[in-house]
Amino acid sequence: MQERLQARPRAGSRRVGSRLKALLQGNSAMQVDAVWTNLHLATLDTPSGYGEIEDAAIAVRDGRITWLGPRARLPQNLQSAVSHDGGGGWLTPGLIDCHTHLVWAGSRADEFERRLQGASYAEIAAAGGGILSTVRATRAADEQALYEQSLRRLHALSAQGVTSVEIKSGYGLELHAERRCLRVARRLGSEQRVHVTTTFLGAHTLPPEYAGRADDYIDALATTLLPALHAEHLVDAVDGYCEPIAFTPAQLRRLFDAARMLGLPVKLHAEQLSDGGGAQLAASVAALSADHLEYVSDAGLAAMAGAGTVAVLLPGAYYALRETRAPPVAAMRRLGVPMAVATDCNPGTSPCASPLLMLNMACTLFGLAPDEALAGMTRHAARALGLHADRGRLAIGLRADFALWDVAHPRELAYWIGGRSCVGRVVDGVPVEAT
Amino acid sequence: MQERLQARPRAGSRRVGSRLKALLQGNSAMQVDAVWTNLHLATLDTPSGYGEIEDAAIAVRDGRITWLGPRARLPQNLQSAVSHDGGGGWLTPGLIDCHTHLVWAGSRADEFERRLQGASYAEIAAAGGGILSTVRATRAADEQALYEQSLRRLHALSAQGVTSVEIKSGYGLELHAERRCLRVARRLGSEQRVHVTTTFLGAHTLPPEYAGRADDYIDALATTLLPALHAEHLVDAVDGYCEPIAFTPAQLRRLFDAARMLGLPVKLHAEQLSDGGGAQLAASVAALSADHLEYVSDAGLAAMAGAGTVAVLLPGAYYALRETRAPPVAAMRRLGVPMAVATDCNPGTSPCASPLLMLNMACTLFGLAPDEALAGMTRHAARALGLHADRGRLAIGLRADFALWDVAHPRELAYWIGGRSCVGRVVDGVPVEAT
Ligand SMILES: [Zn+2]
Ligand SMILES: [Zn+2]
Repeated sequence: MQERLQARPRAGSRRVGSRLKALLQGNSAMQVDAVWTNLHLATLDTPSGYGEIEDAAIAVRDGRITWLGPRARLPQNLQSAVSHDGGGGWLTPGLIDCHTHLVWAGSRADEFERRLQGASYAEIAAAGGGILSTVRATRAADEQALYEQSLRRLHALSAQGVTSVEIKSGYGLELHAERRCLRVARRLGSEQRVHVTTTFLGAHTLPPEYAGRADDYIDALATTLLPALHAEHLVDAVDGYCEPIAFTPAQLRRLFDAARMLGLPVKLHAEQLSDGGGAQLAASVAALSADHLEYVSDAGLAAMAGAGTVAVLLPGAYYALRETRAPPVAAMRRLGVPMAVATDCNPGTSPCASPLLMLNMACTLFGLAPDEALAGMTRHAARALGLHADRGRLAIGLRADFALWDVAHPRELAYWIGGRSCVGRVVDGVPVEAT
Repeated sequence: MQERLQARPRAGSRRVGSRLKALLQGNSAMQVDAVWTNLHLATLDTPSGYGEIEDAAIAVRDGRITWLGPRARLPQNLQSAVSHDGGGGWLTPGLIDCHTHLVWAGSRADEFERRLQGASYAEIAAAGGGILSTVRATRAADEQALYEQSLRRLHALSAQGVTSVEIKSGYGLELHAERRCLRVARRLGSEQRVHVTTTFLGAHTLPPEYAGRADDYIDALATTLLPALHAEHLVDAVDGYCEPIAFTPAQLRRLFDAARMLGLPVKLHAEQLSDGGGAQLAASVAALSADHLEYVSDAGLAAMAGAGTVAVLLPGAYYALRETRAPPVAAMRRLGVPMAVATDCNPGTSPCASPLLMLNMACTLFGLAPDEALAGMTRHAARALGLHADRGRLAIGLRADFALWDVAHPRELAYWIGGRSCVGRVVDGVPVEAT
């Protein structure tokens, strides 16, 4: 099946022939770099549903979509350098995983095991477990080791159709280690066929050297780490963890003020374990997204709706923590808060690199419909990263990031528990081999 | 990473050299077909834990394990025709998925979507949904179409290390369609590098043509379908669905009596939605397994323990149905009932072909420890299929069915939500390329 659907150029003679033909025909030809046919499109370029176009064609030039529609209406004068056969599958926008902590060292499998053998969280913390064990391992790892460990996770994401991924720092918690993590994220984006945006999450948890001095740590982030890393072009956005066990809204507001002085958009881990007013904080600074939101209030959601802040739902963490209170999806729908869905890939609360499983969990555990879940990992995920003018839909002018699926209908992507591999990805118009 | 760990023969010259050497040395050599080194073993050949052997070697002859242990103790006189490099990974017994309904036609993704859009079960049934929609599609499908659809699911299982799989009929519910499904299962076993056992599940649900005549249907199964299919060597075991919405213990006992007359072992879907005494029925006929068991009583478990009947846990169905009552794992431990874990791969209640995700769900949702979960898909799964003398552990004399993993420790297999691909499988001593 993979063979049949693998997007690939046809014979070279055809390439030369069509270019020659275009040349002979002069300017009347609509010249494109590549065209895909024998496929259906789920454009996700509609307020709801999949935006299906059956028996479609889609054309690309200079990395952007230049034409799409029913194949029968393909312009007569379209001349393509390369022709791809979609094998009868469905083409969706490439998936966008808009919330990950992909770069870390070490493993927390031992902690997972000890907890299931009956150890309490306190015992695990006393034995050196928890997030700080990841911080220790990440600080101790060199850049190459971090890169290699993270690359495997990135490959798992892209095998299920991811073409854009957000990667947060936050396991370094001091300048050099935060820099190293962000550099690894940048390097993944430049060396792999995936679009990477970076988020500075220095305010992930309080590092041990600042115990009892959270305000001092926030000051260091706002006045030293963030400006330095931003000057090195390592930061696309700033995030924080708003929760009594982490940082207060007042502390995060100071950090966000610094971010906005630098022209950086912000995001927030909010209302995961309690309602701390994080959604209102996020809305007040026009944050791109507030993430988790199990305990968000109606007032918080109303503020987000007013600010256009996206709700990023993270069912993997909800599942792994055995939480019982789901985010208020019905209220989000009613208030018009866009819902994104992401893996939250991290070693402690969501060791998951399966975006399609997250679509299924968003449906099964949170009650999203399959089209809402898919929009949550395409159109709305793009908005959560500020990329919505460029990515997340199939529409003329947008970047040509595609995922091709061997399914009878796109609703199957959320239906399978654990998903399946995509049969081909296209990033910026260029087909990518399976990794 | 995959490259590094892919099990493969070394250069041919070595093969000839070692054979020649063995010939020259005469009978003093311990001649084997293949040896694996540069790996660790998780033998699962212990009452608990993983049975770790670090820096190990394992040798195979005629499809069976002939030696295993620390590499430093590899016999001096061992001569191997082929040498494999495990790349520093962990080798486990090949996974055994002991409960699947792998062979069906059609999809229930539309039903999944309608339910999430708010349709009730009654509305979906009225619209032709539910299990009978799969029965209609399966009856209408020809053998080749059934084979191709099922093969994709089998490939997904084997990508995550499955080397043995049980496949139930039960979407035909009449002689010709049940035969077709069992023939497809047999063909998967003969054409693919995976060991298949078949289970006749004619007593899955009442077919519409027998509405109101469940006893007549059971009689037809016991006196006509089962003997006919058994005579065609299509049946390795007999299963039934014991639940008020399906069949009573008394009805299933008649079917099981017929099975035992033919010398066939039995299994039972029991106590999934209520306590109907299925566990006691299973124990009374020395069933290989009773499966699901969310509502099993202590008396039922005690009977199973006495009969040596395995409890097969199916967390995928529990998850998909949003059930809240987990099987009584603590009581199973206390009473010494072996716990297996399986995918229950089926289109309605567990559309899942990810065995590693089921290990994670067995831990996260049911509280198994990672070593218990892995034993549940190796040692105890073999017992649930009556294969335990031959498969499910790494031990001398057993079939050489292996899965090789690029993990730091086998506990990672259950830790990741959604798992990962294995880097190589070996079936009956023969390495299998990734599918
Ligand atoms: Zn997070
Ligand atoms: Zn079943």
